[in-house]
Amino acid sequence: MTMNAYVKTERTEGASYKKAPLPKPGEGEALLKVISAAICGTDLHVYQWNEWARKNVRQIPMIMGHEFVGTVVEAVKGGFLKAGDVVSGETHIACGRCYQCRNGTRHICANLALPGVHRDGAFAEFMAYPEASLVKLPESIPVEYGALMEPFGVAVSAVENADVAGGNVVVIGSGPIGLGIVCAARAMGASRVIALDVLDYRLSLAAKCGATRTLNVSGISPADFVLSETQGVGADAIFDASGSSAAISGAFKYLRKGGSAHLVGLPSNPTPIDLASDVIFKEATIYGYHGRKMFRTWTRMINLLESGKVNFDPIISHRMPLAQSEKAFELLLKGEDASKILLTP
Amino acid sequence: MTMNAYVKTERTEGASYKKAPLPKPGEGEALLKVISAAICGTDLHVYQWNEWARKNVRQIPMIMGHEFVGTVVEAVKGGFLKAGDVVSGETHIACGRCYQCRNGTRHICANLALPGVHRDGAFAEFMAYPEASLVKLPESIPVEYGALMEPFGVAVSAVENADVAGGNVVVIGSGPIGLGIVCAARAMGASRVIALDVLDYRLSLAAKCGATRTLNVSGISPADFVLSETQGVGADAIFDASGSSAAISGAFKYLRKGGSAHLVGLPSNPTPIDLASDVIFKEATIYGYHGRKMFRTWTRMINLLESGKVNFDPIISHRMPLAQSEKAFELLLKGEDASKILLTP
Amino acid sequence: MTMNAYVKTERTEGASYKKAPLPKPGEGEALLKVISAAICGTDLHVYQWNEWARKNVRQIPMIMGHEFVGTVVEAVKGGFLKAGDVVSGETHIACGRCYQCRNGTRHICANLALPGVHRDGAFAEFMAYPEASLVKLPESIPVEYGALMEPFGVAVSAVENADVAGGNVVVIGSGPIGLGIVCAARAMGASRVIALDVLDYRLSLAAKCGATRTLNVSGISPADFVLSETQGVGADAIFDASGSSAAISGAFKYLRKGGSAHLVGLPSNPTPIDLASDVIFKEATIYGYHGRKMFRTWTRMINLLESGKVNFDPIISHRMPLAQSEKAFELLLKGEDASKILLTP
Amino acid sequence: MTMNAYVKTERTEGASYKKAPLPKPGEGEALLKVISAAICGTDLHVYQWNEWARKNVRQIPMIMGHEFVGTVVEAVKGGFLKAGDVVSGETHIACGRCYQCRNGTRHICANLALPGVHRDGAFAEFMAYPEASLVKLPESIPVEYGALMEPFGVAVSAVENADVAGGNVVVIGSGPIGLGIVCAARAMGASRVIALDVLDYRLSLAAKCGATRTLNVSGISPADFVLSETQGVGADAIFDASGSSAAISGAFKYLRKGGSAHLVGLPSNPTPIDLASDVIFKEATIYGYHGRKMFRTWTRMINLLESGKVNFDPIISHRMPLAQSEKAFELLLKGEDASKILLTP
Repeated sequence: MTMNAYVKTERTEGASYKKAPLPKPGEGEALLKVISAAICGTDLHVYQWNEWARKNVRQIPMIMGHEFVGTVVEAVKGGFLKAGDVVSGETHIACGRCYQCRNGTRHICANLALPGVHRDGAFAEFMAYPEASLVKLPESIPVEYGALMEPFGVAVSAVENADVAGGNVVVIGSGPIGLGIVCAARAMGASRVIALDVLDYRLSLAAKCGATRTLNVSGISPADFVLSETQGVGADAIFDASGSSAAISGAFKYLRKGGSAHLVGLPSNPTPIDLASDVIFKEATIYGYHGRKMFRTWTRMINLLESGKVNFDPIISHRMPLAQSEKAFELLLKGEDASKILLTP
Repeated sequence: MTMNAYVKTERTEGASYKKAPLPKPGEGEALLKVISAAICGTDLHVYQWNEWARKNVRQIPMIMGHEFVGTVVEAVKGGFLKAGDVVSGETHIACGRCYQCRNGTRHICANLALPGVHRDGAFAEFMAYPEASLVKLPESIPVEYGALMEPFGVAVSAVENADVAGGNVVVIGSGPIGLGIVCAARAMGASRVIALDVLDYRLSLAAKCGATRTLNVSGISPADFVLSETQGVGADAIFDASGSSAAISGAFKYLRKGGSAHLVGLPSNPTPIDLASDVIFKEATIYGYHGRKMFRTWTRMINLLESGKVNFDPIISHRMPLAQSEKAFELLLKGEDASKILLTP
Repeated sequence: MTMNAYVKTERTEGASYKKAPLPKPGEGEALLKVISAAICGTDLHVYQWNEWARKNVRQIPMIMGHEFVGTVVEAVKGGFLKAGDVVSGETHIACGRCYQCRNGTRHICANLALPGVHRDGAFAEFMAYPEASLVKLPESIPVEYGALMEPFGVAVSAVENADVAGGNVVVIGSGPIGLGIVCAARAMGASRVIALDVLDYRLSLAAKCGATRTLNVSGISPADFVLSETQGVGADAIFDASGSSAAISGAFKYLRKGGSAHLVGLPSNPTPIDLASDVIFKEATIYGYHGRKMFRTWTRMINLLESGKVNFDPIISHRMPLAQSEKAFELLLKGEDASKILLTP
Repeated sequence: MTMNAYVKTERTEGASYKKAPLPKPGEGEALLKVISAAICGTDLHVYQWNEWARKNVRQIPMIMGHEFVGTVVEAVKGGFLKAGDVVSGETHIACGRCYQCRNGTRHICANLALPGVHRDGAFAEFMAYPEASLVKLPESIPVEYGALMEPFGVAVSAVENADVAGGNVVVIGSGPIGLGIVCAARAMGASRVIALDVLDYRLSLAAKCGATRTLNVSGISPADFVLSETQGVGADAIFDASGSSAAISGAFKYLRKGGSAHLVGLPSNPTPIDLASDVIFKEATIYGYHGRKMFRTWTRMINLLESGKVNFDPIISHRMPLAQSEKAFELLLKGEDASKILLTP
């Protein structure tokens, strides 16, 4: 039995749409029929076979992809899911034994395994997945939103920690995660959400997601703009989804005394931070986020989506058949107008 | 120089609309022209001269009222307010010296003084008030909203502590404070807000404030309703603005394990709570609220109002001239359809 | 193959020391040789067969006991424990599927199973136990301390939540849990720990555990004493390990404004609380505790024990062979001078 | 009327022991007789007249010094202090009007004034000081400890935020603030406190303050040592009191996933931080500290000192007459064996 899949077959750039064996669920795993899967920045790394991918990818050939929504076709015996359930998947598959797992923080397990990086992923017709890492979605949520819950979860995890209600926040970078932060911040009561990017296309999406102000920061610093929007006080919280060291270093200049910085984007090099002026004298706090609380963040997300407080439509820019995966990757790598691309097997 | 005022003149029921001397600001006090003042439950106690009033009111004659918005007509020399500023007032005037004041919680000062209870209040044309207890309002907020900020602050103080974003909450009692909780909970991201009351009129206001479900609980327990609305899990948080012991005791039956109860309404007698089943086995938490954080809660409120996330219109049921204060009190005491009444000098 | 055990054999008062079949570990379970087990108040309920026991005990015959330390004699294949490891057990065996388990609070699982209540327990030579509920103890901790970690965990869970460092706390009830609270509060930096009880014997143990003051409250209220010890301010935190409704109601009188009450003892009837004066005007917070965070609280406990900050010796009053279980139960039920009794198979 | 004082008289290196006019208390200020004052790193900057001093010092001539204990000789009329009270001083004199002051964080006021930097300080026989910034000390605390409370407060502010009870912590830098962190961490229940420095003299003081391990890090990285002391998990919390960028960057390598970094020492240049590996993937949190919560931190300090949990004796290396100020400064600037030096007028 075979199925169609998008597979990393060589330790070099690229991937292939080809036949792959139907996955066999291991112990505690359900078999899913993938409804839709989304392309993430991590998938681009794997596709491009950059340094990070060379260090982290553990198996070749490997089916790519980790953001998905699917239907249970073969349930775990005695499990809590049944055939027909629509599910999304937590991609941080935890070991259950390390210090972090045993102390209530398995989302940052010391031995995390991710589909599409360490094991076969979601760019395929079928997928075997641990039931313990699946979340059933209610019917009231648009099915394709299920493929966006994993990245949105990172955004929600950051925003839920930042106490934004009634606050003034800045979101640096309006890619899919940044847009999720804009959505979540507005849903959780932020009063002013200033979205930054260097691409007008992305800023237009930010506005649709609820940003109250947007600013194209190509060649300029947003400090004056933010200070002016906040009566000279500065932002209560800044969220970085750009991974730009320069943007992060600069953001402390418009963070208010006592404010907080929330980091999601991954800078490729060390970022110089003026700790004395920008962190210590300010009593600022810097938080890093990697993943979502299991499954507290998921519960919150589902409730926000069910109540209509969040709308993913502006984030989804393309829906393409899985057979056109290569075209989708090229589109993202060329930097054309695109946000989240959904692949349908 | 005299002015019109509504004055408690006798240690018995009632009050009088009459001439009173123009107030003289003390050190650090500004003189305000009152634009609008609102009637609170505490004012009803003072009017009725019940046991609480007999114990707490310190001076007679005394101008009543403590919820207000006004204009600075005489600023404090060297102060931060200037003539013409529109201000609302924090009614918890703190001593600045007690343990609570010195440890960052002056809103629960051990020696609180309230206008309309311990000193002349706001039901008058003019009022002298400590500048340190005044909050300047931005022009973007409807002026009369200023008279509702003090009671709304209690609601916001409770909701900001309850982490409601994406949560399912129940609000017991849909009087002005309960409505404020509904408004605040929705603004801060609560997914389901179930409002309870025994009066359909009030429930209709709750719906206008954003409650997702309302239930008239005359003669019935809401437990089944709430459990059914929450897939059998129970509410994440319950807010009591009714002061009904029976409602509070009963609320723990539909609070989920690990949930929290937030108490604002004042029961007149001890409330029996089944601590073993309802608090300990559930790991529930119970919070009491008295006032607003100075001025963190005010900042949050102003931002929420400025961003249009909160609408007080459904809460204001009547606007009457100060000369008709007696009629306004009678209307509230008769329990007719009324929510917040604004008095205009 | 049989072993000696202390078994609830009839649905009536009492239990029997007798032969029982050697337990067979189920999937994911290790076989333990019990080194020592401790008698808890819950065991007394089961022994006496009171209303709680009649409602909650699910199987008869059932080996009693749930507080234990043992040695792994048969490890789980592929598990993280190996034969010879000394372990203590988390007695809240969680279902893994309910709302609480899926949202990071499995210690308050909606479907908890406890050994000695819902399944065979620890008063035996051997015991089968889920590996996921076992905690390996370092060699540096006295082995018999392992039998006290479960009850101590309740104390630590409460104290770690109460921010006691540099604070003035009152502990109501100086039984084993109350003594654990005294130990934990001192280890975590409480400045003044006032221990209350009606038995001088217990108060003498509290002093050995580090209480800075003790008070026999037979027939008197401790309010004046506590206020005097705290310069009239009141206690920062009160911990109830007595389960006495009168003591809990009364405790709010000496809790300071803004203080917190932490409840562990189980009152048998509803407790009347003056919510207006004692919770709302005070902005007090009430927390219930049932169990320990898995395994954050255990990690903290082990570290506190390893660093010598906690000494259980005053808490252990008797060490008796398992064959004398009946004598041990009678001793506790007669209310003679006894604190924690360890049974050795 | 004149008094002896140590005065910055020129905008160049050095200072002079000379006669100065007796200070005249302004409104709300008490006159104090200084009992003892301590030299801080900030005083060294002012003495050396480095870049920071040139930018921040506002008046010349100016009496130096800001860490002190004194006796009230002239109380504020109607104030809460009376003549004869022994007091220590909060050195962050807040404006009361800025965003931070109005929102509950006046210790990071946007317009802070410090004695010895912006106004006359404590290296003198007498000092005028705002009553609102004074804290009365109980008789049970050794008087000279009063001069160390301000710097100790920074340590306590960091440690109280770090939830160290039962934790493994690393303190980088064993100068007076680092030693305060060691003291506070031990008092608040840290299990393992590893103190680092490049001077054996300072490490010997750290051991006296309660460090469980010390390590001279001259030319070596402490990463292996810390990982080995924590079973490969890494430290729960790291505190930097060194201000060394290299030490801070390196510290993230031995911080555990989910751990926190607490920064007090002031690096003179931007510090490169590998945010992706060290903060985001780790979900680490970085906190800056500047000052003490008014006066919550002071209350905690006083209680810790009163209960005997903290001993400042190892931190005080020298007691010298004020007349020998220059010698004291030279001793510190030469880097000889010295920790905190007290000057007595």
